[in-house]
Amino acid sequence: MRWTQTLIPTLREDPKDAEAVSHKLMLRAGLIRKLSAGIYTYLPLGMRILEKVVSIIREEMFRAGADCLLMPALHPAEIWKRTGRYETLGADKFAFKNRTDQEYVLGPTHEEVITELAGAYIKSYKDLPKILFQIQTKFRDELRPRFGIIRTKEFIMKDAYSFDRDEKGLDQSYQKMFEAYKKIFTRCGMSFEIVSADPGLMGGKVSQEFMVESKFGEDVMIQCPKCGYTASQEVAGDLCPQCRSKVRKSTAMEIGHVFKLGTRYTKVFGVEYSDEKGEKRTVIMGCYGIGVNRILAAHIEEHHDTKGMIWSKALAPYQVLLLNLNQSDSASVQIADKIYESLIASGLEVLYDDRDERAGVKFNDADLIGIPLQIIVSERNLKDGKLEIVKRADKKTERIDLAEVSKFISETLSGLS
Amino acid sequence: MRWTQTLIPTLREDPKDAEAVSHKLMLRAGLIRKLSAGIYTYLPLGMRILEKVVSIIREEMFRAGADCLLMPALHPAEIWKRTGRYETLGADKFAFKNRTDQEYVLGPTHEEVITELAGAYIKSYKDLPKILFQIQTKFRDELRPRFGIIRTKEFIMKDAYSFDRDEKGLDQSYQKMFEAYKKIFTRCGMSFEIVSADPGLMGGKVSQEFMVESKFGEDVMIQCPKCGYTASQEVAGDLCPQCRSKVRKSTAMEIGHVFKLGTRYTKVFGVEYSDEKGEKRTVIMGCYGIGVNRILAAHIEEHHDTKGMIWSKALAPYQVLLLNLNQSDSASVQIADKIYESLIASGLEVLYDDRDERAGVKFNDADLIGIPLQIIVSERNLKDGKLEIVKRADKKTERIDLAEVSKFISETLSGLS
Repeated sequence: MRWTQTLIPTLREDPKDAEAVSHKLMLRAGLIRKLSAGIYTYLPLGMRILEKVVSIIREEMFRAGADCLLMPALHPAEIWKRTGRYETLGADKFAFKNRTDQEYVLGPTHEEVITELAGAYIKSYKDLPKILFQIQTKFRDELRPRFGIIRTKEFIMKDAYSFDRDEKGLDQSYQKMFEAYKKIFTRCGMSFEIVSADPGLMGGKVSQEFMVESKFGEDVMIQCPKCGYTASQEVAGDLCPQCRSKVRKSTAMEIGHVFKLGTRYTKVFGVEYSDEKGEKRTVIMGCYGIGVNRILAAHIEEHHDTKGMIWSKALAPYQVLLLNLNQSDSASVQIADKIYESLIASGLEVLYDDRDERAGVKFNDADLIGIPLQIIVSERNLKDGKLEIVKRADKKTERIDLAEVSKFISETLSGLS
Repeated sequence: MRWTQTLIPTLREDPKDAEAVSHKLMLRAGLIRKLSAGIYTYLPLGMRILEKVVSIIREEMFRAGADCLLMPALHPAEIWKRTGRYETLGADKFAFKNRTDQEYVLGPTHEEVITELAGAYIKSYKDLPKILFQIQTKFRDELRPRFGIIRTKEFIMKDAYSFDRDEKGLDQSYQKMFEAYKKIFTRCGMSFEIVSADPGLMGGKVSQEFMVESKFGEDVMIQCPKCGYTASQEVAGDLCPQCRSKVRKSTAMEIGHVFKLGTRYTKVFGVEYSDEKGEKRTVIMGCYGIGVNRILAAHIEEHHDTKGMIWSKALAPYQVLLLNLNQSDSASVQIADKIYESLIASGLEVLYDDRDERAGVKFNDADLIGIPLQIIVSERNLKDGKLEIVKRADKKTERIDLAEVSKFISETLSGLS
């Protein structure tokens, strides 16, 4: 993609009103634009990173045996009233009546919708187990939207739901999702902790959270260095309830949550299967969420320096940034164009800074947006038939022969994390 | 994907209350499930087809020089009031106040949001031209949702917006989108007509619609066989306004619409650029929509027979359906498993009917869901070391040697449209 063709509105200064590093950098690098409190547009660069996250999640969900569907955002309020969560959600929900006086809830999660659906189709033990997921937009009327995309009114979730015949089946489905989550967050290049959590609004018995430490986190994370006890709730006197050691306490931008729901929803919607003897039994359920947008913020919080973001290869919006320092020098343009075409042809994702801007502006923007490899075409180096390759993470620079660019780039990329 | 692992709830009988063939077949084949009037879940098979459409659209949009972003569904009502469309939309919009008395509109389209955004970033002639698109969920309070997914309250649109310095630039952007649309609908395997249209709610001067003929269409399509005049409005006496010949009149499930908007929105939001002389000029805009869900319905309306849907290779949820007729015969299972693994390994998308069901059920479901190629593993044929391959479109059947399956499938697929 040519820079002049896309929209990457970088800012030189830190924006006002942004506290969290991720929020500042996402605004400065032109990843997002605020439309209203807690409501953001993902600009092309932000959108590409979002798509990288989505595709990692999809791959691991399929690999874990789940299949993908898409549920609506508009829910009849009636199904929320059936589970009692219409009340529990309280003023956090967006709910409204339309012109024909039907009441809708904008879905903040989809247990009600998927359980109603499961009830229609799951009839026999032969239909089980089943894991279904979606990647979809959700809504929640956050009273105090904060930290950019960390706490918003509209956000993208991966939500998966498992249906099993008994507790043993649920354990297996839960474990599959748990392992998939570890793979997803590892592939996204994040350092995460797994803690026991309060199921809260979801109900059910067991739940675990995948947390990323952050000073802008809104959750508390308790870890006992001695016996390994973890929790996302405060503990009395900061002492471990298991071994009475002093716990480690930190703040942590929950990025994933897995729940054993049991029959909390399937009982309400009468989701039953016939077993081998023809006896009716209630289906056992689990649910598994990932905050897709939050992964972007968490990655930035963990991987940045004073100059800007540093994207891991897996989430980088492009793998290579090609900078032509002098857009008015036709020899430079010709060579940069050629490199661009050949890298694209070899299957790489390349952003080509073809703007008529000063070298300083291009260098600053390059470090700000954090694409892993920078190829610099300058008149000075071209005289010797050379190019400069800069690794964004450590700013290590190498001069290489023009003819070696493709080979060098693919070798360097394969060595990057 | 194994059938037992996913969710494909086929129905033997035509569902009640479904008029349009596409609606009947989408319900019978387990592509969609109604949650409420005009609100549908896409079940895994429907979701895969939707994803095929989305990926064709994305490819052609990128090829035409557009880049992708993602705008929110929640719009502050204020921006709709600025253009006067808050009034024009009337009761068709979903609008509501939240707990803090802020009014939101659920976006039925995004001219307001993107124009506000463009105003913030487009400053100079160097920033132009620019084409941006998104594939996103939209909302419209249809009073009479009809024909399954053809007229719904929640739907997916591809909406693109072009920004140019002058009318000549707009002509070029419009032409790029126009050509991309022809490629998209052709790749989706649809017979479409292009007609002149009334810009209506969008405003602007020129607009054209991409129409698919259908007896369940809600638009009128006028075509003059003599001079080529086309329109999506009635003409007096059914006579061509250009040459007075008798026009051809039909009903047609608009699937795409391209508009030259001019300065209708950019003037309201003050979107101006400085030209080479430093003079301020208003940016000229175009907008280009595709109803993503409607493409599914239109394809089914055009490609089906009495047994079910017939998917083109490009939109088929899977390319190959592997049917094992006797799930209790271990030799059959072993061979079917092996074929499944080898086809997957060769990069094909395979659905494997591994259900413990009668052959008749499997045959009926296979024709109903309309996957292009069926591979049938039966005890009878296995005795001769043979398999049966059926082309869904013409039901042409061939017996082939077990060893030749991969070669035969890839050759047959490459010959299919």
